[in-house]
Amino acid sequence: MTDVRILDATRVPHGPVDLGAIATDTTPGFDGDKDEGKAALAELGEELSELQERLWAEGTAGSDRRVLLVLQGMDTSGKGGVLRHTVGLIDPQGVRIKAFKAPTDEELEHDFLWRIRRELPPPGYVGVFDRSHYEDVLIGRVRELASPEEIERRYDAINDFEQEVTAAGTTILKCMLHVSPEEQKSRLLRRLERPDKHWKYNPGDIDERGRWSAYREAYEIALERTNTAVAPWHVIPADRKWYRNLAVGHLLLDTLRLLAPQWPTADFDVAEEHRRLAEEDPVA
Amino acid sequence: MTDVRILDATRVPHGPVDLGAIATDTTPGFDGDKDEGKAALAELGEELSELQERLWAEGTAGSDRRVLLVLQGMDTSGKGGVLRHTVGLIDPQGVRIKAFKAPTDEELEHDFLWRIRRELPPPGYVGVFDRSHYEDVLIGRVRELASPEEIERRYDAINDFEQEVTAAGTTILKCMLHVSPEEQKSRLLRRLERPDKHWKYNPGDIDERGRWSAYREAYEIALERTNTAVAPWHVIPADRKWYRNLAVGHLLLDTLRLLAPQWPTADFDVAEEHRRLAEEDPVA
Repeated sequence: MTDVRILDATRVPHGPVDLGAIATDTTPGFDGDKDEGKAALAELGEELSELQERLWAEGTAGSDRRVLLVLQGMDTSGKGGVLRHTVGLIDPQGVRIKAFKAPTDEELEHDFLWRIRRELPPPGYVGVFDRSHYEDVLIGRVRELASPEEIERRYDAINDFEQEVTAAGTTILKCMLHVSPEEQKSRLLRRLERPDKHWKYNPGDIDERGRWSAYREAYEIALERTNTAVAPWHVIPADRKWYRNLAVGHLLLDTLRLLAPQWPTADFDVAEEHRRLAEEDPVA
Repeated sequence: MTDVRILDATRVPHGPVDLGAIATDTTPGFDGDKDEGKAALAELGEELSELQERLWAEGTAGSDRRVLLVLQGMDTSGKGGVLRHTVGLIDPQGVRIKAFKAPTDEELEHDFLWRIRRELPPPGYVGVFDRSHYEDVLIGRVRELASPEEIERRYDAINDFEQEVTAAGTTILKCMLHVSPEEQKSRLLRRLERPDKHWKYNPGDIDERGRWSAYREAYEIALERTNTAVAPWHVIPADRKWYRNLAVGHLLLDTLRLLAPQWPTADFDVAEEHRRLAEEDPVA
């Protein structure tokens, strides 16, 4: 059913990035409508689960392989929705989610990658970063939380870091959830209109929204500078929630298919264990 | 649809516990068959998810409340199955799973509760312990990993600890997955017969199986000694996987219903935020 069309169609080409030229309400690599998209996501759950279990099984047998899904996007772009609807398809035992907030005082005393390293997924896991080290070149740049020289240094530091992490067995999948300012407005309005959504609303989101074009520029620079062969970027049109969830699901599935994890072979004598199991009777 | 019948029917009465007198293949509190049980589990997912989201929302607004599900049981009793099929119904963002293995050298240098405290769920979370501090009075007792005096001390230490954790806002739900030695044997056999299950098989499981009655006695003592009003035990017949998954789902649901978490009220001026959102236009 699935092929790598979404993987290819959302990959950011090398070179300068113009987010204004990438539509937020299209469904690249998928021809179906909303109902078909939801059905397609539900359908891929089974294969996604089995591949994740194989990855996990490999991890118990000494493999270093693991996956790290990095989710970035403006407020309301749907990082939480992807976690609930897409990552939620996988056995939670094999998932490690980390939501990065504003750094603590302790974290600020270290290099920006210090807190990131501590949250990398162990072998066998699918790790998910809800925001990430990219905040340090996004809000870090827009709000001038570091000097221009330090921001500049960080792009290369990120590439070196991701190269190192990849070499240690982690496949990195980077997704920017691309939402339009109009769609963000309607989502923020919905949060204001529904008392059961008030808790999700943060007046500070309006301040960040006022810096929309500065964020777009910061994203464009980050996407260009860190779009490496080992850890390429995908821009996921995110105005349609169902496509956003499906696209990330496909990306995870295709990533795991390419890894093709295998069930480990027995490190014990199967016949001998059959004999032991048949012989003893604990309730005798 | 659901009521508290399973919660009541699986609760361990105070006093001495005789696990041999509790059937492993019954479905206390539920009259339906396997298909009905699976459907009932799927059905409760929606309410479970909403209650979990409310608990999470409360946590963002300063509430200390959280839930800790403790899963214990012999090998193959299905702790992993409960995680996949029942805990998997909840938004993974709000779940914190910890699987406790044999303690490390560092952990052994501390009191047995030291490593447990570090893994308690933060406010708003549903935490799940796959094995727990109870191992220190189960395998700890059976394999004589501590002196009899130390084992004896631990029951009261656990009760004090759980009292303290409860007072800090955590509702503790303790489930012993109760499987028969015959059912364990058939599950171990299945692992041996299927190459895609070999990775789950551990020859050491046969050694532990040989101590079945010692484990049963250790469970009976632990269940009796730590069956407190604030953190009572539930014994879940676990020979039928569908009932085991459904029962723990009901217990979680009923626990959250009793907590009745509420959507937090806005800590901002809703009208003012409407005005701000209408006014600005980031792409102008």
